[in-house]
Formats: sequence, C-alpha cells, structure tokens
Amino acid sequence: MARYQLVIAYDGTHFAGYQRQVNARTVQHEIEEALRTLGWRGERILAAGRTDRGVHASGQVIAFDLIWDHSTDSLQAALNSNLPSDIAIRSVVRADPEFHPRYDAMARRYHYQIFTCPVRDPFRERFAWRVWPDLDPGRLEKAASSLLGEHDFAAFGKPAKPSGSTRREVKLAEWGADGDHLIFRIEANGFLFRMVRRIVKIQVDIAHERREPGFIDRCLNQPGQVRVQGLAPPNGLFLTEVSYPH
Amino acid sequence: MARYQLVIAYDGTHFAGYQRQVNARTVQHEIEEALRTLGWRGERILAAGRTDRGVHASGQVIAFDLIWDHSTDSLQAALNSNLPSDIAIRSVVRADPEFHPRYDAMARRYHYQIFTCPVRDPFRERFAWRVWPDLDPGRLEKAASSLLGEHDFAAFGKPAKPSGSTRREVKLAEWGADGDHLIFRIEANGFLFRMVRRIVKIQVDIAHERREPGFIDRCLNQPGQVRVQGLAPPNGLFLTEVSYPH
Repeated sequence: MARYQLVIAYDGTHFAGYQRQVNARTVQHEIEEALRTLGWRGERILAAGRTDRGVHASGQVIAFDLIWDHSTDSLQAALNSNLPSDIAIRSVVRADPEFHPRYDAMARRYHYQIFTCPVRDPFRERFAWRVWPDLDPGRLEKAASSLLGEHDFAAFGKPAKPSGSTRREVKLAEWGADGDHLIFRIEANGFLFRMVRRIVKIQVDIAHERREPGFIDRCLNQPGQVRVQGLAPPNGLFLTEVSYPH
Repeated sequence: MARYQLVIAYDGTHFAGYQRQVNARTVQHEIEEALRTLGWRGERILAAGRTDRGVHASGQVIAFDLIWDHSTDSLQAALNSNLPSDIAIRSVVRADPEFHPRYDAMARRYHYQIFTCPVRDPFRERFAWRVWPDLDPGRLEKAASSLLGEHDFAAFGKPAKPSGSTRREVKLAEWGADGDHLIFRIEANGFLFRMVRRIVKIQVDIAHERREPGFIDRCLNQPGQVRVQGLAPPNGLFLTEVSYPH
C-alpha cells in the first residue's frame, strides 16, 4: 500500500462539480469508480480543491492509497483507460504516506478566460466567458492590482467552514492576453467559495464603468459592509496549479 | 419575401450531422425550428455541404426565403437568440433570389486539426484528433503535395449521386502549425463522401510509416483498384469556407 499523488485535468462542462454527490455526475465519483476497477477499496480520495459545477481544471491535485505492483506510468495508463473522455490523468507520483493535497497546499492558482465579441462563438464559449462591449485593459489591470496582498475578502465569498477566517493572501493577480483571449491569473494561499468568479465579475463591471474604479478597495477596506453581487459564469474558470512545499 | 445567405458555425459534437433526419438532433433541424419562430413557412433551408456526424463548421453557408421587415443585423440577432449554444449565425446578407449555396459554390475549404501527445487532453480533443507517436512534418507535406491538381479520387470516397463523377480538383492541400496544433488545410471544387477524413488518415499512416510514401499517388493513378481504409475521427474536421463567384 502506498500513497499516490496525481495531477488531473477535466472539462467541467458536464460535471456537477468535483465533489461527490448523490445522483449527480461528479469528477470524484468518476475517478473513484475507475480506481475500484484497479482494486481500490478506500472510502474516498483526497483533493486539493472542490471546483464548482461547470468549472474546469488543468492542474487539480488528488491523492489516494493503493496496492499497485507496477510502475506509476502504468497506473496512469490504467486509470486513463477507465475514465471518460472529459477527465485525464496528467501525472502520477508516489507521495509521502501523510501527504494531503488540501492541507499541504501552500498556494492555488486559477485562470479565467474571457473573449470580447458581439456575436456568440460555439468553439470558444465552452472554455471562456464571452463579454461585450470591449474591455479596457488599463482598467482591468488597475482593478487587479488592488487585490494583491493580504486582505479580508469577506465581501467576495464565504469560507468552507462557517466560522473560518476570510483573510487570504493574494500573491498574483494580473491580466494577460493569449491569442484573442484575455486571461486573468490569480494565485493565493486559499480562496473563499466562488471568490474568483466574484472577483472576475466585479473587474468586468469596473471595466464597463458599471462600478467605480475604487470599488474593490472599498470592499477590502470595509469587509463587513459591502457584498459583491454577481458571478462570472463557471465556463471561463480553470484550476491550473496547486503548489506544495519543496 | 427575400432570399438570405448566412454563414454559420457549429460545434458538431452533439449533432447527428448537418442534414435533417427523423429522431436525431441535427443542425438543419435546429435552424429550421429557430426560423419558424420568426414566421418562416418554408419546407427546407438550403446548405452548401452536408457535414457528417460530429464534424464542426466555422463557415458553413445556408440560404432560405423569408418575409422580414427589419435589418439583416436584427435577423442575425433574432436567430442567435433562438438557437442553442452550439450553433451561431456569423453573418447574414440578402442574396439573389436564385442563389443556391450548394450549386453556386466554386470551392469548399476544410481544416483538420491534430495534436500529438501520448496522454489524452480533455480540452483539446473536442476539436482535434490526438495522435501518437509524433508526426514527421516533411512526410506529411510530401504526402499532401500528391493531392494537388485534378484527379479521380474514387479510392477516397463515393460521390453524393451514385452515378456521379469521382473527379475533383484539389486547389490547396498543405500542413501548417497553429500553436501546438497541426492543421491540414484542403480546398477543392468539391469533395466525395468522407474524402477529407480518408485523406487525413492515410497521411498520418504514411507519416507513421504504416504506409509507403507513394501510396497516395498509387490511389490516384489506379482509381478503380485501390480503396483507402480507415477514417480520421470527425472531431478534428471543420468546414471553414465556401467560395462563390464575384
């Protein structure tokens, strides 16, 4: 028996989120079913983050204990051949027996993809939010810079535990371009529930002048008094990386 | 009443092809249903090409007659708001009352997307064929050049009409790169049934040394005696453009 650490990718479109639920198609359930065909008898696998319905991942990290007499490459191949086409195992390594993908994580990184277009586009909208009118990059960049550092993000979401802290440290928050997509990249030591989607929505509102440029500062300075309304849709969001010590 | 000419795009993944069929979700059916909500009473709309199950289009051309008292922009918006998210109307213009998207077409262009990777990828495989091992670009380019010009393509497919000619003129056949995708572009005055997917498959077989480099020449020089076996999967194929006189 050994603990394995895996990086996985999934197209979230047809999942009711990562986490197992009764009567719903979830990423966790599909992976657990694939593992059972390899003799896994555990109760549940561990994961770094619980992505929401419709959210994608290119770098989600999971872990489980398994008796496996072959190589990690063959474990990867065996799992991939037992998984549906919208989930892929990207890498498998043996981990410390105590490794926990959620508690050991130092930082998580998300990307949010946007494209600006007045007419819809069936090829791009699966993995990006279509926005119109065009977005002013300067306004977006300025809004993103307000997020950097340690703040009370209570205006942007709730913690996983009802009594948990709403303070988080944002280490990276920037807008870039990739072809005709705008990409917002954010890294923090942790995220509140739906925090990234609220952050993206409010930045788009600011760029569209539906909110004043200082609104994010006001949210962070008066955490108990302001609440961000609205969410960017899940289809633009990707969990891209989870970082661990060493 | 006027005739309208439209360029449409669709993600073919969840369609049983373009052409209307009983008890199947087709692109034609969805557009006809959207048109009926705008008062269209026609029997069928016209299209440049009948793409197969799972094949995409970014430049399919359709036409229909409609009584419409507003602008072509408002017709585009009205149709898009009545269509499912995997079909989009890209442009609408008024056409000659005799315009026929299939009979008037001078050329059709297709793209076929491939990426080479040993492990699957849920984001790329919706719109590209994953191939492994890597492909030698020189072999692909040499294979493609054999296709250029007018030939009897009987080895690569059947004509729409059982007694129809199997001669076609290929005006463009080339491989290029776009990011980490290989793209095969082909333009001809017309295509036989599944001709592009057979052409792509045989080129990949040649690049993988499962077929000799001269196999395409042999198919074209002995049209009645050789038949190409195997098809590239539909998910990599896009109908990108249909050309008309003037």
